Amino acid sequence: MALGVAALPFTFVVHALGIFLLVLVLVWTIDFRGGFAWEATNKSLIFNIHPLLMLIGLIVIGGEAIISYKSLPFTKEVRKLIHLVLHAIALILGIVGIIAAFKYHNESGIANLYSFHSWLGIGIIALYAIQWIYAFLLFFYPGGPVGLRTDCLPWHVVLGFLIYLMAIGNAAIGFLEKLTFLENSGLAKYGSEAFLVNFTALITILFGAFVVFSVLSQAPVEEDQGYSPI
Amino acid sequence: MALGVAALPFTFVVHALGIFLLVLVLVWTIDFRGGFAWEATNKSLIFNIHPLLMLIGLIVIGGEAIISYKSLPFTKEVRKLIHLVLHAIALILGIVGIIAAFKYHNESGIANLYSFHSWLGIGIIALYAIQWIYAFLLFFYPGGPVGLRTDCLPWHVVLGFLIYLMAIGNAAIGFLEKLTFLENSGLAKYGSEAFLVNFTALITILFGAFVVFSVLSQAPVEEDQGYSPI
Repeated sequence: MALGVAALPFTFVVHALGIFLLVLVLVWTIDFRGGFAWEATNKSLIFNIHPLLMLIGLIVIGGEAIISYKSLPFTKEVRKLIHLVLHAIALILGIVGIIAAFKYHNESGIANLYSFHSWLGIGIIALYAIQWIYAFLLFFYPGGPVGLRTDCLPWHVVLGFLIYLMAIGNAAIGFLEKLTFLENSGLAKYGSEAFLVNFTALITILFGAFVVFSVLSQAPVEEDQGYSPI
Repeated sequence: MALGVAALPFTFVVHALGIFLLVLVLVWTIDFRGGFAWEATNKSLIFNIHPLLMLIGLIVIGGEAIISYKSLPFTKEVRKLIHLVLHAIALILGIVGIIAAFKYHNESGIANLYSFHSWLGIGIIALYAIQWIYAFLLFFYPGGPVGLRTDCLPWHVVLGFLIYLMAIGNAAIGFLEKLTFLENSGLAKYGSEAFLVNFTALITILFGAFVVFSVLSQAPVEEDQGYSPI
């Protein structure tokens, strides 16, 4: 299923869309929603940490982690290190972001874990962590036998992809869920904030698509750039 | 990114999950939501057509269309015909399902096209139609030059995949959106209907994952089963 075009232009689009996403979520959470706080009487400020960290963590840094292994002009060992460190940062931000959502719920008297967004989110973060730990042990330290690495590598790639695409989908679900709550509380359905949130969700999906294009197209240097288990 | 295991067991899981999805959506729309009607004073019966046709069409038949080209034990021409006919059925059911949503909105005085689910849905059905028409002309009738077919085939596969995964994601978004509306109107957040709808969304994503596994693993007969542009 590899695409016969160079990966590099796609990776530039990923970086640009990632910065754009960061701007969009900051405009939304700060300008429209009043900013952030870990402790506050206005509990909405605690919630705002959630979309910020999930988007920067799992989506943007997670996406950069995926393409880094393929596209950076370093040795395999260095790329592997960057790949696993970026995924670790994504995972930690994701966990803190989820804690912020629970904290907001608990302090506002809102029920936990009733929505599909929360179910899927818990599943994704658990799979993300399992995938990270398993790959660390197998491919980095202490490292498994070569045969096992060779057998597991395509699964690592495919399952990692599915987890990432579920994260993209769940981010879009989260934007829609929050917007629906706000619209039920009187926010204009065709207003500027509704447009901004929907647009951010759309750019999130586009970001995910370009991560996919980057990984499925051709690495800059042919040798030492393919997926190899060692 | 191919998986070194046989596709056949995965395709059986796809069929089983597809039947399960059909049962789940029928139980929800009939037992919990009162069934279907194209003309009715109870406008909810018009809405119910929407999740039914989208799920059977774009998701289940669309998924079967994707795996049919890879896994059925027929000649390439026959598989291609099955592939394009199933996708045509999926597309038609999807279009009728979207019309049902507009009809429900219009007759109930609900605004159209304000939610991310609707934006994404319009985008997906348009891309699905473009992908079908372009592929029909290029790969089936009248058929493009061999060089163009060879160049376009990986894009057909990758873009088709992305469109399908967006459809899976948007189905999950749709379930969540409808459930949020119902919960805002008093439906119990931890009740049996909420559980059923969330569970259906979860099985939808699992169905999509097994379609991906089926396509990325090994076809039953090696010769004449790979992706070839002719």
